[in-house]
Amino acid sequence: MSAAEGPPIDAGRVIADLRELDRRTGGPAGAQRMCWGEDWRRAREFLTELLVELGVEPERDEAGNVWAKLEGESEPALAVGSHLDSVPDGGWLDGALGVMAGVGVLRAWATSGRQPPRSVVLVDWADEEGARFGRSLFGSSAFSGALDPDQVRGLRDSEGRELPQVLGASGVDLDRVLQTVERRETLAAYLELHIEQGPVMEAEGVPVAAVRGCAGVERHRLTFTGQASHAGTTPMDQRRDAGLAAAEAALRIEGVAERNHGVATTGALALRPGIPTAVAGEAELMVDLRNPEARALATMLDEALAIAQLAAEKRRCEWKSELVWRIEPIPFDERLVSLAQETVDEIGGREQPLTSGALHDAAEVARVVPAAMLFVPSIGGISHAKEEDTSEADLATGIEAFGALANGALPLGR
Amino acid sequence: MSAAEGPPIDAGRVIADLRELDRRTGGPAGAQRMCWGEDWRRAREFLTELLVELGVEPERDEAGNVWAKLEGESEPALAVGSHLDSVPDGGWLDGALGVMAGVGVLRAWATSGRQPPRSVVLVDWADEEGARFGRSLFGSSAFSGALDPDQVRGLRDSEGRELPQVLGASGVDLDRVLQTVERRETLAAYLELHIEQGPVMEAEGVPVAAVRGCAGVERHRLTFTGQASHAGTTPMDQRRDAGLAAAEAALRIEGVAERNHGVATTGALALRPGIPTAVAGEAELMVDLRNPEARALATMLDEALAIAQLAAEKRRCEWKSELVWRIEPIPFDERLVSLAQETVDEIGGREQPLTSGALHDAAEVARVVPAAMLFVPSIGGISHAKEEDTSEADLATGIEAFGALANGALPLGR
Repeated sequence: MSAAEGPPIDAGRVIADLRELDRRTGGPAGAQRMCWGEDWRRAREFLTELLVELGVEPERDEAGNVWAKLEGESEPALAVGSHLDSVPDGGWLDGALGVMAGVGVLRAWATSGRQPPRSVVLVDWADEEGARFGRSLFGSSAFSGALDPDQVRGLRDSEGRELPQVLGASGVDLDRVLQTVERRETLAAYLELHIEQGPVMEAEGVPVAAVRGCAGVERHRLTFTGQASHAGTTPMDQRRDAGLAAAEAALRIEGVAERNHGVATTGALALRPGIPTAVAGEAELMVDLRNPEARALATMLDEALAIAQLAAEKRRCEWKSELVWRIEPIPFDERLVSLAQETVDEIGGREQPLTSGALHDAAEVARVVPAAMLFVPSIGGISHAKEEDTSEADLATGIEAFGALANGALPLGR
Repeated sequence: MSAAEGPPIDAGRVIADLRELDRRTGGPAGAQRMCWGEDWRRAREFLTELLVELGVEPERDEAGNVWAKLEGESEPALAVGSHLDSVPDGGWLDGALGVMAGVGVLRAWATSGRQPPRSVVLVDWADEEGARFGRSLFGSSAFSGALDPDQVRGLRDSEGRELPQVLGASGVDLDRVLQTVERRETLAAYLELHIEQGPVMEAEGVPVAAVRGCAGVERHRLTFTGQASHAGTTPMDQRRDAGLAAAEAALRIEGVAERNHGVATTGALALRPGIPTAVAGEAELMVDLRNPEARALATMLDEALAIAQLAAEKRRCEWKSELVWRIEPIPFDERLVSLAQETVDEIGGREQPLTSGALHDAAEVARVVPAAMLFVPSIGGISHAKEEDTSEADLATGIEAFGALANGALPLGR
């Protein structure tokens, strides 16, 4: 028997598991499965129930990731998964879809009476969202080795609690999290199903898409400093309006995205003193630039900084730029992306792979293990909100495609 | 003897009184004489000391304004004054200069052994700044009758205390404040000395200027509503970015000011959700438009609203405008402005009267009693800050001009 002819996934059961998870942990304001919190723990208890039902015992690694292995005929294993944690007031599918679909892959084999041609491992990554400490992809970047414990040691949550203490309360020792990198040798490949979290697939009317990689991100804080002054008594030609410098920068940075086939967002702007009766003396503008191509991303940053310079000079403001966060574009494994596209073609989905503008655990994993993803559409493009949803038909198609992709990937070595 | 030959004001003593007031009530962060507060009460105690020294007994009206009358040969009286209250972390001159200069006018007559040709009344208006409840010109608008007690009854301070209770604790009954309007019949004219609070006079190098009136203000809240969405996954052409709509409106509203010879300020802008990783779904922009001409002010508002409409349409946002506050341009009394300009000409000051872009108690008084003002320069145009200052030479020139103007105005009836 070829692995591509492996047992089919039960999409209906996966959707039922997702609904049960939502029932056990959600509330009227949406999902509250913030990592290291109570609802997240309950979600993992539910995951354990599902795995034990399949005769698989989950174990936790040094970074707080949960692994569950269904023994196959050979090693290294195929890994499937995503993350159970959510943002506050989040949706029922972000992350949970990939974990429950992964359970579905294990279930298909466990209930088939057959042994998979290689071991299949489910992984539930810890703290993908970074909702509490602002550090996304915690568990998967520990796995990839990209995490620097010393860079996150000083982080505090909004209540002032330090990251090492919060992790400690969950049994995770920050100084040992990188030990999980040893697991990479046990994996042949990693596959993840996720919602798109954007409007493209809905607009195109496709139920499933292969993903070719994650866009790179340059996130910078631009600070413009002019002179706060009285709104009534300062003539227009004597103003040094930092707010207008920032407004002009934001508008022109929009054009940077269009020129370079990326996206640019200026979603946070703070004015000081920030009152109607004073010209703003200081303005802080957050600029988030994304592009699938490293070179184009670098060009976007250059252009954005040149724009800031000009906007500042025009209004006689000082300015500075601070790096907040950056990640290079991360392409997925070519062979796995091709296989994913073939699977999507067979089932009837998007004719070309998408690039993900959002980051996913698969991007961290792809640094060290061949990886690929599938997306299903997000209704209205909405995510990170209780309204987050995908039609039942699209969910079923996506889960079935994921099951088929896993079966197709099982014969592949590294 | 003609009144214009009245006794000269002692500018040095006025400046000394200002320094003593600053010493008694200021702190390292600046003046803290917020109305109805402890420092403000102490300032008024000091004022009482100064008046009692002149043999004048102050009395408080129903709105909390303090009046002190030096009996003259005739009625109605000439009033001089300003306000002792300050903003938090304010300067030593805003308001206090006019009150202490007014005391100087009374002192000149009281110590001359002569009786003025008409009574001279000092007035210290209550709560000019509106620092606690956001309602400026409280005492003077009660005097003019423009205050509607029912419109301020529900105001609360930042600690949640209601205006009627705070006033009550200072012995002011909100339902009786309008009784002070009866005093208007007792006044022939009102004169006020104030700092410019802007950079114009310093740039011109003039020590004193006549003021022809206060500009009108249109303050509106523009709300743009688009769609919050993910910074990474929302293509540029599918965005409805309310933040960029507001940024474009702010930039174009700057041009409205230049076209119409007024000023326009967009000093407060709030984005929601206001995070780097989301396109702003809502933006609230405060627009403050000022112009000395009513017609030009109306044109500015029309243009600003048309700009908002276009900016919203361009980014497929909804928008609305809410009136926050408006006041029409208030010209001062022509005869008094001419007299003020003559006084300024004699002493060597600005060749033309200024229009005040900031509001003053004199604007409220001018609704019902002939009024005019003099300005002295503000170093760096700075006010409402501990750095607020005026050179000693300019202070002396301004105070002397004010004394001369009061003497010149004494013979004038209504």
